[in-house]
Amino acid sequence: MKLVRYGRSGKEKPGLIDAEGRVRDLSGVVDDIGPDQLSDKVLKRLAKIKPESLPLVRGNPRRGVPLARVGKFIGIGLNYSDHAAEAGMAIPKEPIVFMKATSCLSGPDDPVMLPKGSKKTDWEVELGVVIGTVARSVSEKDALSHVAGYCVVNDVSEREYQLERGTQWDKGKGCDTFGPVGPWLVTRDEVPNPQRLELWLDLNGKRVQSGNTKTMIFSVAKLVSYVSRFMTLMPGDIITTGTPPGVGMGMKPPQFLKRGDELVLGIEGLGEQRQSVVAYKAA
Amino acid sequence: MKLVRYGRSGKEKPGLIDAEGRVRDLSGVVDDIGPDQLSDKVLKRLAKIKPESLPLVRGNPRRGVPLARVGKFIGIGLNYSDHAAEAGMAIPKEPIVFMKATSCLSGPDDPVMLPKGSKKTDWEVELGVVIGTVARSVSEKDALSHVAGYCVVNDVSEREYQLERGTQWDKGKGCDTFGPVGPWLVTRDEVPNPQRLELWLDLNGKRVQSGNTKTMIFSVAKLVSYVSRFMTLMPGDIITTGTPPGVGMGMKPPQFLKRGDELVLGIEGLGEQRQSVVAYKAA
Repeated sequence: MKLVRYGRSGKEKPGLIDAEGRVRDLSGVVDDIGPDQLSDKVLKRLAKIKPESLPLVRGNPRRGVPLARVGKFIGIGLNYSDHAAEAGMAIPKEPIVFMKATSCLSGPDDPVMLPKGSKKTDWEVELGVVIGTVARSVSEKDALSHVAGYCVVNDVSEREYQLERGTQWDKGKGCDTFGPVGPWLVTRDEVPNPQRLELWLDLNGKRVQSGNTKTMIFSVAKLVSYVSRFMTLMPGDIITTGTPPGVGMGMKPPQFLKRGDELVLGIEGLGEQRQSVVAYKAA
Repeated sequence: MKLVRYGRSGKEKPGLIDAEGRVRDLSGVVDDIGPDQLSDKVLKRLAKIKPESLPLVRGNPRRGVPLARVGKFIGIGLNYSDHAAEAGMAIPKEPIVFMKATSCLSGPDDPVMLPKGSKKTDWEVELGVVIGTVARSVSEKDALSHVAGYCVVNDVSEREYQLERGTQWDKGKGCDTFGPVGPWLVTRDEVPNPQRLELWLDLNGKRVQSGNTKTMIFSVAKLVSYVSRFMTLMPGDIITTGTPPGVGMGMKPPQFLKRGDELVLGIEGLGEQRQSVVAYKAA
């Protein structure tokens, strides 16, 4: 099942994608897609609905973050060995955990805004894992049963803020618009093996990132289990699992986003995002 | 005005403290104390209520986190020069920003639970700053007008997870129960100068931390302004502003929390927290 939230920011309605790829209105069935709708029980109930029985959504409404009320937006650093190499950093012995501010969440096609004065805003296509049920110190074997589904995440990062202004990365990871998520939350029954997914990112029509989740250093199951030992994972939390090679910081010479750039990124079976890069605008 | 939330975890009701220090039931006036109640307008309306006109809350109900729906729980590292020295770290040139998982939030008197196998759980009394209105790239001069009020925070930290398992601190900062907040949210009109507050922490009846916010490296106004340049601060976000010297890691030899330890910590005008340290318990 592919769940979506559509409509203008802050006013999104729940929907699901039918066999023809069209959006069907789910608001007669659930108020929203959020922590209360991510359990196996509710998802099974939704899966029984025939999409054709739901109202068709006409036009091309904006696509929002496909789940509401995300509590934690957890990032994993350097989880592809070849990306660690291009970043000039050692392969981690255990997962690197950081946090993206939840205020950076944005729809999959919303513009990415350069922070004021930013010179080093970079892209990172990543597999996002959406937690469905409370996970506290769970084993690797049980970990995936706590996952509601998967989504595309662009872990947009400002490298100067992340790496040159102190030791902690969070400053460069949570700027407004730095967390495009979606277009869909694809339930885990449609992703039998999260370690066999192609992922890619095009900058201005040119493929710059290309990888497969099979080359992750730490698997999704390992990451969910690992993080759950340090903090309880709650329904609606997102873990974004690291990026394959091809980010701007790793190019020779390094290349960063500028106003007018166009990003298209996607993951096999999870859909595609399209973002325009825009200049900083005061509120 | 001193705002509180009382009752069992997840079912707290809003209240305020009267002139005799007793809790008055505010649930007939507002549903809760959360992002929607933290604007100057709403706080002014609440300040007009005579506490004696509200029902008296009898007994000694549990005290919860004094605000609901905290979006971001932002930490500042090494913000007192003498604490930086005891931690063996350099005085930062600009604020160090990290994030505490919101799932670690707990009431001011709730037990602090040692993570499974933890040997280095430590204490940190800190001034917490509660954001009242959206702050995006605000100046230092305007920063305090975006603050709803202040509270006591214990920035509980597991030093092995924070410092010995990779470069990023968040792993050791957001374990469950690592974020006692309260007892009160004291509105900013009652704190004319946040840089003149005594703060202290007693471990098993012995004073171990003792400081004053006047020795902060970066002031509250500076921190709000600074963080707001990297991420938009939203009503209900909390910034915890660093700890004065006297943490366990800085003792010779280092001393960490063990089951049965008792913590009492407070800040001048903002009340006191009391926590018992308990062993890890599986869910």
